[in-house]
Amino acid sequence: MAVYFLSFLVCFALRAEAFALEPRLTWQESEISLTRFQVQDVYNYSTLLLSDDNNVLYIGAREVIFAVNSQNISEKKQEAYWKVTEVKNEECSRKGKSKQTECLNYIRVLQPFNESALFVCGTNAFQPVCDILELNSFKLAGKNEDGRGRCPFDPAQSYTSVMVDGDLYSGTSFTFLGSEPIICRNSQHLSYLRTEYAVPWLNEPRFVHADVIRAPENNPDGDDDKVYFFFTEVSVEYEFFNKLLIPRIARVCKSDQGGLRTLQKKWTTFLKARMICHSPENNLIFNVVNDVFILKLREPVIYGVFTSHLNNVGMSAVCSYSLSTVEDVFTKGKYMQSATVEQAHTKWVQFNGEIPKPRPGACINNEAKAMNYTSSLNLPDKTLQFVKDHPLMDDSVAPIGKRPKLVHQNVTYTQIVVDQVTALDGNTYDVMFISTDKGMLHKAVSHDMDMRIIEEIVLFPDHQAIQTLLLSDKQAKRYIYAGSSTEVVQTPVAFCEKLASCAECILTRDPYCAWHKGKNSCVNILAESNTDRLLIQSLNGDSSHCPVDSQGEK
Amino acid sequence: MAVYFLSFLVCFALRAEAFALEPRLTWQESEISLTRFQVQDVYNYSTLLLSDDNNVLYIGAREVIFAVNSQNISEKKQEAYWKVTEVKNEECSRKGKSKQTECLNYIRVLQPFNESALFVCGTNAFQPVCDILELNSFKLAGKNEDGRGRCPFDPAQSYTSVMVDGDLYSGTSFTFLGSEPIICRNSQHLSYLRTEYAVPWLNEPRFVHADVIRAPENNPDGDDDKVYFFFTEVSVEYEFFNKLLIPRIARVCKSDQGGLRTLQKKWTTFLKARMICHSPENNLIFNVVNDVFILKLREPVIYGVFTSHLNNVGMSAVCSYSLSTVEDVFTKGKYMQSATVEQAHTKWVQFNGEIPKPRPGACINNEAKAMNYTSSLNLPDKTLQFVKDHPLMDDSVAPIGKRPKLVHQNVTYTQIVVDQVTALDGNTYDVMFISTDKGMLHKAVSHDMDMRIIEEIVLFPDHQAIQTLLLSDKQAKRYIYAGSSTEVVQTPVAFCEKLASCAECILTRDPYCAWHKGKNSCVNILAESNTDRLLIQSLNGDSSHCPVDSQGEK
Repeated sequence: MAVYFLSFLVCFALRAEAFALEPRLTWQESEISLTRFQVQDVYNYSTLLLSDDNNVLYIGAREVIFAVNSQNISEKKQEAYWKVTEVKNEECSRKGKSKQTECLNYIRVLQPFNESALFVCGTNAFQPVCDILELNSFKLAGKNEDGRGRCPFDPAQSYTSVMVDGDLYSGTSFTFLGSEPIICRNSQHLSYLRTEYAVPWLNEPRFVHADVIRAPENNPDGDDDKVYFFFTEVSVEYEFFNKLLIPRIARVCKSDQGGLRTLQKKWTTFLKARMICHSPENNLIFNVVNDVFILKLREPVIYGVFTSHLNNVGMSAVCSYSLSTVEDVFTKGKYMQSATVEQAHTKWVQFNGEIPKPRPGACINNEAKAMNYTSSLNLPDKTLQFVKDHPLMDDSVAPIGKRPKLVHQNVTYTQIVVDQVTALDGNTYDVMFISTDKGMLHKAVSHDMDMRIIEEIVLFPDHQAIQTLLLSDKQAKRYIYAGSSTEVVQTPVAFCEKLASCAECILTRDPYCAWHKGKNSCVNILAESNTDRLLIQSLNGDSSHCPVDSQGEK
Repeated sequence: MAVYFLSFLVCFALRAEAFALEPRLTWQESEISLTRFQVQDVYNYSTLLLSDDNNVLYIGAREVIFAVNSQNISEKKQEAYWKVTEVKNEECSRKGKSKQTECLNYIRVLQPFNESALFVCGTNAFQPVCDILELNSFKLAGKNEDGRGRCPFDPAQSYTSVMVDGDLYSGTSFTFLGSEPIICRNSQHLSYLRTEYAVPWLNEPRFVHADVIRAPENNPDGDDDKVYFFFTEVSVEYEFFNKLLIPRIARVCKSDQGGLRTLQKKWTTFLKARMICHSPENNLIFNVVNDVFILKLREPVIYGVFTSHLNNVGMSAVCSYSLSTVEDVFTKGKYMQSATVEQAHTKWVQFNGEIPKPRPGACINNEAKAMNYTSSLNLPDKTLQFVKDHPLMDDSVAPIGKRPKLVHQNVTYTQIVVDQVTALDGNTYDVMFISTDKGMLHKAVSHDMDMRIIEEIVLFPDHQAIQTLLLSDKQAKRYIYAGSSTEVVQTPVAFCEKLASCAECILTRDPYCAWHKGKNSCVNILAESNTDRLLIQSLNGDSSHCPVDSQGEK
C-alpha cells in the first residue's frame, strides 16, 4: 500500500500550490459606488452591445431593448418594448411552457446592422423572430423575420452569434424541443449555410462564444477571414463511465459558399477540435468551457474560463491559447475517422489514409486557387465527402504553457473579458476580469508566468449569477458592464483613488494604478500622461520608492 | 447561458446534501488512553495477523516479527529478527536501491501455516524469500524459499495474499522492476498456477485485498470455493484524455488446476469485472479502490473504500456490494472482447458471439461435471482459449443502493474493517471503521439507508498514514489494531464509559453503547447481558427515556 500514500502525498503537495491564492483585496458594495441600471418588472438583462463612438450601451432584456449612457448606465436614453402577442403567449403555454416566464420574448441577438440600425432577435414565445431596430426613432421596423437558427426557441437554451460584414453567424438550436443543434450563416449577399444535422458535427453542444478573426492584409497563403465558435459538447471520441463532456473550438471560412452537390447549402469549411485545459501534475481536468474572450492582437490570444463536470466540487480554471496553435491543428493536424467494430459499435480513431487535395475544410486559399478551385462550389467531391465525414480533428489545442493560467477552488467562473494595459515599466499586461455565479468579479494579472488575483469586486451583493460581461476599452475611461437576471451594473476597471497610501497603491500590483507624488494620491495611469516623472509604480510590490511621509500611512 | 447556471445550481444543491456530515464526536489522544506498541529503530509495522484463541497479535515489521498480547499490545511476548545479509544489502544497493531503506527485509506475508507455525515472506533486499516461523521456539526454520510471486521485490509495491487450506494465493509483482504483475497460487498439494503475463489480464494493477468465500455446503449447482482479488488498474475498455484508473474485482476457483495444453499452469477460472462507485446525481466518480473488507455473512457483503484520481481535491467514498451481484456478473454476464480498428487501434467492445460450453471461467460445477468435465485439465480447448482472450466482463458490479454508502470531503480513506452489532432493538448494525492517511479513524453506522459518522478517533496525533487495520471481533472484548510506519495502536471499538450523561450516551447513537440505570453509567452492551431491563438505548437519538436526574447532566 505504501505506493498509494506516496502518490497521495505528492498529489496533495502539488495541489496545495496549484491553486490560486484568495484575492488580496475585496471591494464591498459599500466601499465603491457602482452605477446600476434596472427597470421595474424587467428581467433577464442578458444581451449587451456597446457603441463606443457615441457612448451608448444597448441592453437586451426580456421583452424590451434599452439604450443607456455607456459612461453612466443609470441614464436611460431610449427604450423599445417588444412584447409577445396574447395569441402567441397562449399558443406557447398550450404547448406546456410557462405563460409567465418561458412564453415571453427574450432578446437574444443584438448586433450592429448599419450606422442607423441594429439587428435584433428574440425568442418570442418559442417562435423566434428577428427585426431591425431603427436607432433614430428607436422603433422596430416590424419585419418579423423567421428567427430560427439565429435565435433559440427556449430562453434556457445556449446560443451565440456574431455579425460579420452584415452577415449573422450564429450557434443555437433549430427546433422547438432544442434537439437540433445548428451553426449557420444568414446573409443578404452570401448563400445561407448551415451545419449537417449529424452527431459527428454537433453532439448536444452548449454554445458559449463566437467571433471573427480577420486574415492579415495580403497574407502569403491568401487565407480567408475565419469565424470561430466555442462550445461544450458530448464527446464521441472518448469512452467513459457515462457521457463525457468536452470543450471544442470550431471554425468556418467567410468565403464558404457550400458545395454544389455534396454539402449543398452546408459548410465545406467546418472543422472542430478539442480544447485542452488540464493541470497535469495533479490530474485536474477542466472539460466544460463556460466563456471565451479573444484578445485581438497581431497574434490573437484566446482566453477561456473552464470548469469540470467530473468530481466537480467547485473548481474553475482559466486557460489561454494562441491562435497559431489553433490554426496549426486545423491546417496541419490529423483528422479523426469513425469505424464500426463488430457491426455494433462506432469507435473514433486517427485517420491515417491519404488526405484528398485541396485539404478538406481549408479555406479557398492560394493553394486551392493554384489548383483552379476558386470557390467551395467547385471543390472536388472527394474533398467535400471527406470533410462531411471527418469534421473532427485528432490533434488537440493545447493551452499556452501546457497548463491553466489560473486554477481557483470553491468558485464557478461564468464569463471573462481581458483588457491590456501598458504599465510604466513599458511592459503590456493582460488583465483578466472573471465573473462568478455568485455575483463576484475577479481581477487577475499575470506576473512572470504566475497569474495572481489582485482584486475581488462584489458586483451583486445578493450573489446573483453574472450572465454577461462586456469591456469598454476606451483609452481614458474603461468600464466593465455585467448583466444579471435583475439588473446591469457598471464598474471602472480599477479603484486606484481608493488606495490611501503609497504603500497600498504599490502593493495592489495593479498595472492601472500608480502613486502620484505631486497629487500625493493613487491615480489611474490611463488618466495621466505616462511620462509623468511624478508617478511611482512597481508591479513586484516593492514600495521602497514611496516618499517617506506617505509610506508612514501604511 | 442560463442553462449552465441552472445545471450548476442543481449540482451544488445536490452536492451539499451528498456529503457526509463531520463526525459528531472526536476523541483526542488525551481523552482516551490507547495502547501502543513500538520498538526503538523498528519501522513499517505493516503486516498484522491475529490469533484470537490464544490472544496473540503477530506483527510483521521491517526485519522483525513480533508476537504481542492481543488484549494489551504493549506486552511483547516474543520477537524474531530476520535481517538481510550484508552481502545481499550490498548487492541491492549496487543495483541503485537505498542501502538504508529499500535494501532491507520488509515482512509482507504473515499467514497461519499450522497450529504451531506461521508462513512468512519478506522483500529481503529485492530478493523476496519465504520461510516458516516455529511458534514455540519463535525461530525461523531457515528454509529461505524463493519468494517471487508471493512477496514483492520492492517494499513500495502493492501486494496482497490470503492463505486458503495451506495454499497461498497472492497478488503482487514478479520482477525486480515490478513490471510483471501476477496473481498466483503456491501449494504443496495443488499445482502452481498464475495469471497470463498480458495486458488484458492485469494492466499495472495495485493490489489492495484478497479473501476466500466458501461455497455453501452441498450447494445445488455444486459450486467451488472462490478466491477474490481487489485492485485498481489501468482501464483497457475506456478511452480518456490520459490513463484512466479503474477498480476491479477478480476471482479464481480453488479447484482450478490449469489447462492441459492451453493455459498450462495458468488460471482457467480467472475473470475480472469493474467495480462501480459513483454518486450519479452530482457526477462524483470514485475510480481508485484503496481497501476492501468482506463481511462474511450467509450472504456476504463486500465493503470498499474509494477515492478518485480525477479532479481529486480530497474526497473519499465507501461503497458496498452484495456477493450475489458479483457472482451474477461472472456467471451470467457478458464478456468483453478486443477488436483491431484500422490495423492500428485496439478497442474493447461487448462480445456478442456464441459463448463456448462449459462457460469460460466457471468453476468445475455440476453443469461441467454433467458434461464429463471433472477437472480444468480436461476442459475443451475452445473454452480455455476463450477465457484466455476474454478475462474481462462487460457487465459492471453495481454497489448496493446504486450509490456510495458514504461520501466524505477533505479526507483520504486508506483502510476499512466492518463489525456487526446486535443492538437492544434486536436489529443488527454494520459498524464501519475507516482509517485516513492523516492518522484518524472514522466510525460510521447506517441508520435507515443513510450512513452517519458517529465518531472520529485520533489514533496518530502526528497525522501518520494508517497502513493496516485489523478487527478483533471476540464477543466481549473487541479491538481495532492500526499499523503505521512507526507503531501499532490498539483501540476499543467504543468508548461508552466516557459518556457521562444518559443524554450523551443516547445521542452518540452508538449501537455498542447503552445507559445502565442501575450503574448510572454508559456501558458497552457486549459486556452486559442484553436482556438487562436496566439498559436504555435508542439509536434514533431520542433520549426521552433517560431518568430525569441523569438527563439533567446534559
